[in-house]
Amino acid sequence: MFSVGIIGASGYTGSELLRLLVNHPNVKVDFAYSKTFFGQAISSVHQDLIGEDLPDFTNNVNPEVDVVFLCLGHGKSKEFLSSKAFSNKTKIIDLGNDFRLTDDSDFNGKTFVYGLPELNRMKIKEANFIANPGCFATAIQLSLLPLAKNGWLKSDVHVNATTGSTGAGVSLSETSHHPYRNGNMSHYKAFSHQHLGEINQSLRQIDSEKSGEILFIPNRGDFTRGIFATLYTKLDVAFADILSAYENFYKDEPFVNVTTENISLKPVLQTNNCLISVEQKGDYVLLTSVIDNLVKGASGQAIQNMNLMLNLEETAGLRLKSAAF
Amino acid sequence: MFSVGIIGASGYTGSELLRLLVNHPNVKVDFAYSKTFFGQAISSVHQDLIGEDLPDFTNNVNPEVDVVFLCLGHGKSKEFLSSKAFSNKTKIIDLGNDFRLTDDSDFNGKTFVYGLPELNRMKIKEANFIANPGCFATAIQLSLLPLAKNGWLKSDVHVNATTGSTGAGVSLSETSHHPYRNGNMSHYKAFSHQHLGEINQSLRQIDSEKSGEILFIPNRGDFTRGIFATLYTKLDVAFADILSAYENFYKDEPFVNVTTENISLKPVLQTNNCLISVEQKGDYVLLTSVIDNLVKGASGQAIQNMNLMLNLEETAGLRLKSAAF
Amino acid sequence: MFSVGIIGASGYTGSELLRLLVNHPNVKVDFAYSKTFFGQAISSVHQDLIGEDLPDFTNNVNPEVDVVFLCLGHGKSKEFLSSKAFSNKTKIIDLGNDFRLTDDSDFNGKTFVYGLPELNRMKIKEANFIANPGCFATAIQLSLLPLAKNGWLKSDVHVNATTGSTGAGVSLSETSHHPYRNGNMSHYKAFSHQHLGEINQSLRQIDSEKSGEILFIPNRGDFTRGIFATLYTKLDVAFADILSAYENFYKDEPFVNVTTENISLKPVLQTNNCLISVEQKGDYVLLTSVIDNLVKGASGQAIQNMNLMLNLEETAGLRLKSAAF
Amino acid sequence: MFSVGIIGASGYTGSELLRLLVNHPNVKVDFAYSKTFFGQAISSVHQDLIGEDLPDFTNNVNPEVDVVFLCLGHGKSKEFLSSKAFSNKTKIIDLGNDFRLTDDSDFNGKTFVYGLPELNRMKIKEANFIANPGCFATAIQLSLLPLAKNGWLKSDVHVNATTGSTGAGVSLSETSHHPYRNGNMSHYKAFSHQHLGEINQSLRQIDSEKSGEILFIPNRGDFTRGIFATLYTKLDVAFADILSAYENFYKDEPFVNVTTENISLKPVLQTNNCLISVEQKGDYVLLTSVIDNLVKGASGQAIQNMNLMLNLEETAGLRLKSAAF
Repeated sequence: MFSVGIIGASGYTGSELLRLLVNHPNVKVDFAYSKTFFGQAISSVHQDLIGEDLPDFTNNVNPEVDVVFLCLGHGKSKEFLSSKAFSNKTKIIDLGNDFRLTDDSDFNGKTFVYGLPELNRMKIKEANFIANPGCFATAIQLSLLPLAKNGWLKSDVHVNATTGSTGAGVSLSETSHHPYRNGNMSHYKAFSHQHLGEINQSLRQIDSEKSGEILFIPNRGDFTRGIFATLYTKLDVAFADILSAYENFYKDEPFVNVTTENISLKPVLQTNNCLISVEQKGDYVLLTSVIDNLVKGASGQAIQNMNLMLNLEETAGLRLKSAAF
Repeated sequence: MFSVGIIGASGYTGSELLRLLVNHPNVKVDFAYSKTFFGQAISSVHQDLIGEDLPDFTNNVNPEVDVVFLCLGHGKSKEFLSSKAFSNKTKIIDLGNDFRLTDDSDFNGKTFVYGLPELNRMKIKEANFIANPGCFATAIQLSLLPLAKNGWLKSDVHVNATTGSTGAGVSLSETSHHPYRNGNMSHYKAFSHQHLGEINQSLRQIDSEKSGEILFIPNRGDFTRGIFATLYTKLDVAFADILSAYENFYKDEPFVNVTTENISLKPVLQTNNCLISVEQKGDYVLLTSVIDNLVKGASGQAIQNMNLMLNLEETAGLRLKSAAF
Repeated sequence: MFSVGIIGASGYTGSELLRLLVNHPNVKVDFAYSKTFFGQAISSVHQDLIGEDLPDFTNNVNPEVDVVFLCLGHGKSKEFLSSKAFSNKTKIIDLGNDFRLTDDSDFNGKTFVYGLPELNRMKIKEANFIANPGCFATAIQLSLLPLAKNGWLKSDVHVNATTGSTGAGVSLSETSHHPYRNGNMSHYKAFSHQHLGEINQSLRQIDSEKSGEILFIPNRGDFTRGIFATLYTKLDVAFADILSAYENFYKDEPFVNVTTENISLKPVLQTNNCLISVEQKGDYVLLTSVIDNLVKGASGQAIQNMNLMLNLEETAGLRLKSAAF
Repeated sequence: MFSVGIIGASGYTGSELLRLLVNHPNVKVDFAYSKTFFGQAISSVHQDLIGEDLPDFTNNVNPEVDVVFLCLGHGKSKEFLSSKAFSNKTKIIDLGNDFRLTDDSDFNGKTFVYGLPELNRMKIKEANFIANPGCFATAIQLSLLPLAKNGWLKSDVHVNATTGSTGAGVSLSETSHHPYRNGNMSHYKAFSHQHLGEINQSLRQIDSEKSGEILFIPNRGDFTRGIFATLYTKLDVAFADILSAYENFYKDEPFVNVTTENISLKPVLQTNNCLISVEQKGDYVLLTSVIDNLVKGASGQAIQNMNLMLNLEETAGLRLKSAAF
């Protein structure tokens, strides 16, 4: 059994890691670090973990664990790593956005690899430090990678994506207050969302000639989990060829499925799957991409990365029942 | 036109008063007091009021207004009235719980009348100071008053009532955080909710011999508005007589309707109505009572009280379209 | 008092008319026609109307009423008008899509005027027959009319709009089944929604040189009421000029408000208002437009049209309290 | 690997079995019988199962499978078993209510055992035919069994329980129509729900002297999954003894947890767990019991029964991640 520690274990991505790891066949949670709740039972904060064999929250780290997950606010990972040292063998997976861009990927002698397995599987297997992708970034990239691979990103891409309220985290805020959020919809950071950087970086990684902008409107949806994204761009290619490109790109991927049917959000909720629908509408290819923002969009993907780094079965601990309803 | 002021105008009951009063034919909002937002446009906080003719939030009161509504946290009304004086002619309606119990109803020479029109209409018409009932208390009392009137409260009454998230107010809290509240249900203050005091007081007012306890479980529901209450008690009376008792009690009431059909919550949402279903089940009478917690349960009832005090049409400003869906 | 009849009074737009008309100061519901429920009390189907003074559902029409509203399935209005005759003075407002396009607007000697008051107020005042706009069409047109007015529609317009489940009507369907719809999101009729016809027709009416396509993705949202639409197009005009164009276009409109603030859906729910946010993002103007699909998107707008045709106050019966939460 | 067949595989409990069984380590789905969808891919109906290794829907049964699950409408299982024969070794688990009561448990030479493992584990291990408990019945019984065990059921038990919309199944109905159900609440079958029979039968099985009635109000909640039940009864026993009784009763149970904390519904969603909170309030013991209606309340419990019958690990295939949010 490998030992793992979680930093920021009381938040949403941290607790989702706990939920996933208690059933993982090859790892054991060594410590769950929380500055707020140390000394308390994990189940006193996360009632769904009553009855599970887990240590109490702590404010000590064990520097010898095999893997550490950083589940801190964006920008806090560097600060944390500056204050705490881990052993040379300890692999670090950061769920924040501190190290996702190449310009930010070197820190204190560590080089972080961008942890999107469908793009960087080989590099991830050899990495010690992973920058786990953002949730919107995951849904959007997975639907555009096959276009980039074929040099088909020559026009603007129009993206509209709606996220559940867990995307805004455990911190109380007006836009996550139930009387406001329930039955409501709004957008934020239109055309300027911070995930655009990592998306464009990945697309250019496989198509350095990519042109056209990504015009992205993120919405706050009236549900707790999931990202529902639609994307379209001009593409003068026969539909059969487009579809083949997607099927080929994802044919060996355990967590990405391609369909030509109209899809909805819920089939992927509570799973590590991304489901992509490919359609042709006149001059445009229309893509619909759905993920669970806390699983494939965060903690599930982090475990997928861990599995790759530890040379485990990639799907270990990630064969999850869909919520379905 | 009568002039009114609202203290605590940025909260839920305060803003609901604004929403109702902008369409009231006989009154005009003179000032909207807010310690947090004074100096700002009301529509900057309440976007639904964009385009309405309303003054900015202020931190000054006009002591000469005809009516003042106190929409402060429970326990804060006494404090406020101790610090600010109003003219002798100013009528005061408190939406908090400071003055609802007879023991609390005298304060600084003012005597507050409990403002449930279906119980105290005549007293309200002559009152200058009103303690507006609580939301759960309104739904529960209206369904029990006809039993009390007939001396039929001789056994325990079992009450289960579920409230929307606006009942917990504008303040951010864990149990109003959307990721927690959506799709969830929980109870709180079982058997000890603070509204039991005013409920029992009203029932004893019309049946001093009332016996039996009220066993009340309040729940937090997965919706923003409304109270759905079921109540049952043993009652060995023919159903026709029970139903007559309800129909007679409410036959002239503009906002209370009685039915024998199975009902749901939504028909009363956004209205000042209370809908009561009366059924007989074996030895028990089963009552279902639904209101909008912010309207009949708070601000609408406050305006109904104001109408009575100002000798206006009781329904003025309260002919509201139901949400229905 | 004017007398009105409603055809299809048990559906969502028909019942919403009833809800609005019971409080309208100048009209009285003469009959509510329903092939399914004739002979039954309206309140037995719509519990929110218990206690209101309304006739039972009927399967007879009174051909002498002043106004008839047709609330039938799309395509059914022609059929109905072929089978039933009304007096010469009876004004007809069709809430379906049978007569919205100019090519369809002449039928049996009647000429239907497209009933968007912000576009066609003068024509509506003189009309006897109105084709009431579609819900998506209303939200989209109101946000684009000022651009068309100024000749600023020269590029593609990218529209993403999400509707509540009442938009799909009272008929049971898999995509309106609660276990499917709750917490879910999906799109339908991407780039081919039937409202595109009326939208383009209106825009060309005031800018015959309009170019560029409208690329429209309609979504099914996880709420019951409302349309939340975002729209953007390239526009090389100073923001102050754009904003002025909107403010001027709507300065005398009773139901359309313009803001530069970020908005959400709920402030307009249960009202006849449309709220439009105008922003500039790089080369693009970004518009956000929200309405209640059953009020400004259907029955409220129908009453606004009726008020204009009967020379009543345009806002009569339409000063509605916002749902807000 | 054991082979299993599912009858009625397109409905909610049938599809939930598929979702669970695709990840079960010891069984393989041999056939999924559907009269509506035979010949179609399972993933064409259940998009969450895209990519899973499953046979198409069929209208043929393999009579030699090790286990058959009947997921038919209540009352349809007898009809089905009369028309189709299975091998002598085939174990049958009925998720309907045809065989739950002792009076109904013998059919065509088969004797059905009531499949509540916490009550009947030993009998289940030796059974060939199981009547799987109802969802409400599961939540209610699990919270009352320790009282029955100690002879503490001497007074009426007051039960209020709210279920998600999946409880009403895949068939379209007015009370499951999203515009009706969302933000709404209602009750049905008050005091007469069909699960009362099996609940009383189980309680009398371990306490033949049990007295007092179970007064049960079932509610339709505004969520898709889960049952939230509160129950109280008079009990003059020290709280420490009550709590011990619960802890002892469930100390070896893999899926039932006891707490004294206030709980909510969501921690058990998507899991096979039942979480019970035990409190003392004056003369009453107050119990709160939560389950996922489709898992512990149906398909998960059916697999738990299968595991017992096949002598597998009881938790095999049932270590599920909680939905949590």
